[in-house]
Amino acid sequence: VRGAPALGIAAAYGVVLGVQNYRGRSREAFYRRFKQIAAIIAGSRPTGRNLFWALERMEKVVKQNLQATVDELKQTLLSEANRILAEDKRTCRRIGTHGAKLLKSGDAVLTHCNAGGLATADFGTALAIIFRAHQQGKRLRVYVDETRPLLQGARLTTWELMHAGIETILICDNMAAAVMGQGKVDCVITGADRIAANGDTANKIGTYGLAVLAREHGIPFYVAAPVSTFDLSLASGEGIPVEERDPREVTEGFGRRIAPAGIKVYSPAFDITPARYITAIVTEKGIIRPPSGSAIRKVLK
Amino acid sequence: VRGAPALGIAAAYGVVLGVQNYRGRSREAFYRRFKQIAAIIAGSRPTGRNLFWALERMEKVVKQNLQATVDELKQTLLSEANRILAEDKRTCRRIGTHGAKLLKSGDAVLTHCNAGGLATADFGTALAIIFRAHQQGKRLRVYVDETRPLLQGARLTTWELMHAGIETILICDNMAAAVMGQGKVDCVITGADRIAANGDTANKIGTYGLAVLAREHGIPFYVAAPVSTFDLSLASGEGIPVEERDPREVTEGFGRRIAPAGIKVYSPAFDITPARYITAIVTEKGIIRPPSGSAIRKVLK
Repeated sequence: VRGAPALGIAAAYGVVLGVQNYRGRSREAFYRRFKQIAAIIAGSRPTGRNLFWALERMEKVVKQNLQATVDELKQTLLSEANRILAEDKRTCRRIGTHGAKLLKSGDAVLTHCNAGGLATADFGTALAIIFRAHQQGKRLRVYVDETRPLLQGARLTTWELMHAGIETILICDNMAAAVMGQGKVDCVITGADRIAANGDTANKIGTYGLAVLAREHGIPFYVAAPVSTFDLSLASGEGIPVEERDPREVTEGFGRRIAPAGIKVYSPAFDITPARYITAIVTEKGIIRPPSGSAIRKVLK
Repeated sequence: VRGAPALGIAAAYGVVLGVQNYRGRSREAFYRRFKQIAAIIAGSRPTGRNLFWALERMEKVVKQNLQATVDELKQTLLSEANRILAEDKRTCRRIGTHGAKLLKSGDAVLTHCNAGGLATADFGTALAIIFRAHQQGKRLRVYVDETRPLLQGARLTTWELMHAGIETILICDNMAAAVMGQGKVDCVITGADRIAANGDTANKIGTYGLAVLAREHGIPFYVAAPVSTFDLSLASGEGIPVEERDPREVTEGFGRRIAPAGIKVYSPAFDITPARYITAIVTEKGIIRPPSGSAIRKVLK
């Protein structure tokens, strides 16, 4: 599972599945089992906020219903997971509707990684904006970074956009600067894995470079994310933990070794884009433009 | 064959091989054959200046010796090709010696693509600087962009640096911004395929983005190239022809298809870095710092 919102949904259902085998009648023991399972799931991916947000929601419903029977608690957890899924579908559509206002017919968008249906319940965050604008009859062209090392752009985003009938052009990550320099890009839209209280945004490795390049070329840089991606406990992006990935994803990711044996690799899965490079953050509650601590608190409250 | 200086050397020997089969005694017909062969070689790669520079040198020695016999002309061409090869070896070492002054012990360098021995006669341009500084006892760490789509960084540069006993860390192209942002890079050094009269530089796709990112992070951006890479007939980089590559290098470059069938791909092999992003150009005749039309003419004359 990948994509911050999808991780949240999967975490919720993961808890539901994890507690199914609990056969006892003790609510206290059930709650301990719940905590064990939640800890295992929480340890799976450190960066995406939605994973922890979903686990916190799941824990809250357990704590609020500790008078219920174990069977009722299991049902309550399933209902909450279903609610998280249903809410994500609505959330993504609202992000799309808000964000579509940022696009006009004829625009070329550049996106990175996959923030589409395959990263959420079904409509995406960054791609929701493109899908909605396309549904409104706006003619769009989308440049898709292949997104090394795992190629989510090449494998997933291209497929989603082509499936929707939107003109799609695949590029290697290192071609984005040239494409911008040639005046071919009107805006950049990406998703987010975690957004700090000041708007600093963790997203797929390569996002930060795109944001710097966008500003250098006078191109708006938009982030699309649900409110559940915000982590107001972190003052800035410095506190966001960034997962490092297995070097073999770089050196052997395509089923063929592409670098000498013994080579050192540095492979952070995410980078942090300072808020000052972000033109606007599109949420289901509206557009935060420009992102700042007070603007974020105002929209999120 | 790849690498601008190596293309020049290969072009020279290609001419030598091409005229071997000429069995006539007519110098005029020999010259026509020479021109045909040179045109075929000139049509092989449009961007690298050294290819054309070498062909121009080869043509010059034919024209200067049109009184000679055909066998003598063949021998003259071989001697000129040998001279181009021998000169490149000296040139690369001089680039290394000049450029090594830019590095101090403890520095971390970021490089892109391959501008090493495998791109020249044997010592490289960008890598010559690193090799020479390392020979001088300076302790260096080199971050190597893998360099999609053809992975010259991952496949060639890592191998050359490891072979020389230099600490080498492979990253994906889209990680360079994060590595710079973390303060891990002291300078960027790349090669060049063609440099216009004003210092605008064509080099492997991704170079331009690195130059923008380096400036944003206050990191010097150096280009290393022999004088033969300069094209003073072009006022600026706008006139440099940029080769577009087969989309399959992006979609099937690893022996496994990584994108949906029918996807459009844009794959320029090179980009143009405006001179204003380049801190200095290191040539065998010295360092041009900062590069400008007058500074370039002064060093090249």
